[in-house]
Amino acid sequence: MNETRLIKLKGLINEINDINMAAAVLGWDQETYMPAGGINDRADQLSTLSKISHEKFTSKEIGDLIGELKTEITNINDETDDVRLIKLLDKIYSKSIKVPSSLVSEMSKAASLGQQAWAEAKKSSDFSKFKPGLKKIVELKKEYAKIFLPYDSIYDPLLDDFEPGLKTADIKAIFDELKPQQVALIRKISEKDEIDNSFLFKEYDETKQWSIGEKAITSFGYDWTRGRQDKSTHPFSTNFGIDDVRITTRVMKNYLPAALFGSMHESGHAMYEQGINRSLRRTPLARGASLAIHESQSRLWENIVGRSKAFWKYFYRELQNTFPENLSDVSLETFYKGINKVKPSLIRVEADEATYNLHVMLRLEIEIALMQGAIHAADLPEIWNSKMEDYLGIKPQKDSDGVLQDIHWSMGAIGYFPTYALGNLVSAQLWECALRDITDLELQIEKGEFSMLLNWLRKNIHSHGSKFEPQELVEKVTGSKINPSAYTGYLNKKYSEVYGL
Amino acid sequence: MNETRLIKLKGLINEINDINMAAAVLGWDQETYMPAGGINDRADQLSTLSKISHEKFTSKEIGDLIGELKTEITNINDETDDVRLIKLLDKIYSKSIKVPSSLVSEMSKAASLGQQAWAEAKKSSDFSKFKPGLKKIVELKKEYAKIFLPYDSIYDPLLDDFEPGLKTADIKAIFDELKPQQVALIRKISEKDEIDNSFLFKEYDETKQWSIGEKAITSFGYDWTRGRQDKSTHPFSTNFGIDDVRITTRVMKNYLPAALFGSMHESGHAMYEQGINRSLRRTPLARGASLAIHESQSRLWENIVGRSKAFWKYFYRELQNTFPENLSDVSLETFYKGINKVKPSLIRVEADEATYNLHVMLRLEIEIALMQGAIHAADLPEIWNSKMEDYLGIKPQKDSDGVLQDIHWSMGAIGYFPTYALGNLVSAQLWECALRDITDLELQIEKGEFSMLLNWLRKNIHSHGSKFEPQELVEKVTGSKINPSAYTGYLNKKYSEVYGL
Repeated sequence: MNETRLIKLKGLINEINDINMAAAVLGWDQETYMPAGGINDRADQLSTLSKISHEKFTSKEIGDLIGELKTEITNINDETDDVRLIKLLDKIYSKSIKVPSSLVSEMSKAASLGQQAWAEAKKSSDFSKFKPGLKKIVELKKEYAKIFLPYDSIYDPLLDDFEPGLKTADIKAIFDELKPQQVALIRKISEKDEIDNSFLFKEYDETKQWSIGEKAITSFGYDWTRGRQDKSTHPFSTNFGIDDVRITTRVMKNYLPAALFGSMHESGHAMYEQGINRSLRRTPLARGASLAIHESQSRLWENIVGRSKAFWKYFYRELQNTFPENLSDVSLETFYKGINKVKPSLIRVEADEATYNLHVMLRLEIEIALMQGAIHAADLPEIWNSKMEDYLGIKPQKDSDGVLQDIHWSMGAIGYFPTYALGNLVSAQLWECALRDITDLELQIEKGEFSMLLNWLRKNIHSHGSKFEPQELVEKVTGSKINPSAYTGYLNKKYSEVYGL
Repeated sequence: MNETRLIKLKGLINEINDINMAAAVLGWDQETYMPAGGINDRADQLSTLSKISHEKFTSKEIGDLIGELKTEITNINDETDDVRLIKLLDKIYSKSIKVPSSLVSEMSKAASLGQQAWAEAKKSSDFSKFKPGLKKIVELKKEYAKIFLPYDSIYDPLLDDFEPGLKTADIKAIFDELKPQQVALIRKISEKDEIDNSFLFKEYDETKQWSIGEKAITSFGYDWTRGRQDKSTHPFSTNFGIDDVRITTRVMKNYLPAALFGSMHESGHAMYEQGINRSLRRTPLARGASLAIHESQSRLWENIVGRSKAFWKYFYRELQNTFPENLSDVSLETFYKGINKVKPSLIRVEADEATYNLHVMLRLEIEIALMQGAIHAADLPEIWNSKMEDYLGIKPQKDSDGVLQDIHWSMGAIGYFPTYALGNLVSAQLWECALRDITDLELQIEKGEFSMLLNWLRKNIHSHGSKFEPQELVEKVTGSKINPSAYTGYLNKKYSEVYGL
């Protein structure tokens, strides 16, 4: 490829990346420290940054450079950074130029105001406070999707933004295979005695919860010189470059798992971003391949490692010493079973591994119906509650435990939830391979040694950033595309042991 | 003025304002929470935002709009927002178009890296770590100043950025009048017995220091729904709009005044920005008129109010109750004298009111000499120490207490220090007028009632934002330009009482 053109293009792309990272800092601040009064100014600022980023990226200059450089690629399957960058830019450019700046700006503003409205609505468990904001977001998302007509499903264009290359039909096929297996497992478990995990609901000092979570993720390998942890209503991970990757968590005084597993989860996301090859810095390649791949990392550390017997053989003594008043008479075995208790519950982020994906399927159906116009924002609380009863046999008493529990829609993220379930599947597919490559992996974990695992993930997943689309990456590493068999195998094995199925 | 053109111009200006505010968020984060690893990415981000802001502002489109609208102003002395906006834009536009984008970007990057280098240098008291960064900043500042040739002093263009309309010669004249009076006062005080303020250096619980500072500025009227306070190495105030104005402070375990008066000082800056008329929102009028006017607000609250007998009649009981172990046997009178002790000291931000301006004069001389090339970055520690001996009769033992104490040069802020002394003068000029307008003001303060004072400042100073240049504003409110007589009168009266002169 022509070196001058490539350098020119990279310079422009670097600046756009800087603008996007600046917006991410503003987003982080909005969720962590911004005073309530700041919301209007912040909405303007984010809207402006988003508009400028979009305008700059969709400029004719960038389009021409991409077009010219594309024709100069001799081998389209080349895996060099430069060829992959041009391919990725070509894809997102082609999508972006179709979207008018005004819509981008409107969406950004709606998302910023939506988040504030959602936070207030959740606080007072009053859906009506969020309804106008949500309605606006759904309208804008429809307008957005329709730009990409024709499609098989109006949901396809949204999904593609989070999971490049995947179609709504692909996900439905995967979920159709997965759902009966998960339901069967839950049924079998429901016939067993309920596990007593009441010790998790005792009072746990919040400062100590914070520290023990930090210790856990420090042992995993989260790099604090390039990150930090703060509090927010909804835990998240965000990054402003490979060397500033932050996480947030929330601490619940009477529920130990919230902060602890929340930190582990977010550290999985963050270690992914911290592990991206520096050669990709300041380009769109310097981020996770997709949300499902991202979620595979967070769920691997939170669940496959963090809820494993091996990990707690290493870490339980530490936890007991931190909370002797609550845990000194709780055995490792009891604790292990307690944190792996399966019981249909209201809150997705607190759901166990066996029921989690059902929460996602419920949301997916609602999102598709919202986008198709089959249901309306106003009907959501009722629809949510009735679906919860269908899927999980329980019904929220208030909307803050129901339709208001997740921040995503308020951020304008529709098409996002299915990636959570896909991430679970991928986490198990990767774990199978890691176990094959690192034969004593479980033994290492029992000793608190995570560096070989982290390095395996760095080499196979993290370092590549977005050089490969999710299906391509999963196939490259595991030999198969995304599919439920490793995950259902993992669940069946784990719960057979926990519940003696 | 043509309404269409005005709306068009305002739209463009609003976006540029948003970019600048976004950069301010990034700056705040860098000083408060950013992990060390983030510095390179942050420097790139700030550099890009600064470049875009500059490019957008110096566009031909904006220039033409300003030019056209200017010709449509029928009365140039009109005080409406719109006329004042065009006048201000015309001035900063004329300056900005002379500065190449590349220089703006370089200065921003040098400042970002300079701050990091300064922080490390200060930590280890090793000037050599900051020297290359400072050298670069001085070089760039010279390059910048020379763009504005011809001038009387190479320092003039720098000063004008912080204090619109003032010249180096004006400041020298003011300082020449001020200096002998301050020196004479210090001499008289030095003949008196030294005040014992050792109780201020006892161990004060840091969390309680934080709370009592918050209580003090809450009573002043700092609006927490539109602000917050965090920790940083060097206290500062920053704003991302009229409704998000933040302050930082630092807490010293063994020195009570640092956090307490630091918070008061920064709240003065912040209340100024919080009090700007919302009609000026998202324009360059929505900020303080100049740094001296800004400093007049911070010093008024910190010193004229915060170190007054009246204030402590109201607040001392609260402070005693917070720190009974240190203060229960310290009388109000002793405390009052303690916080007003005059003694030449090393650190400007901790200097008493009588010696403070000498710290500023010292820096002004160094800055002018640096800019003129009469001295070089490498020689600074030595020059600093020798000037400290000349001016204040003391010499720092380490550079962290000397030349490295202030963050400003590392931020690229040269031309900034004199505004601190001017702010002192203006604070006393305003105070004189406030006392005239609110006859029982001191009595109100004794009762912890600050709303009439705050409203007086809001009406006369805050609400106007940058509609008036500093000299114009001071003259409008007080009837005279900036001059030392109110301040020296205030100092003489205060210290006559404290020291029985």
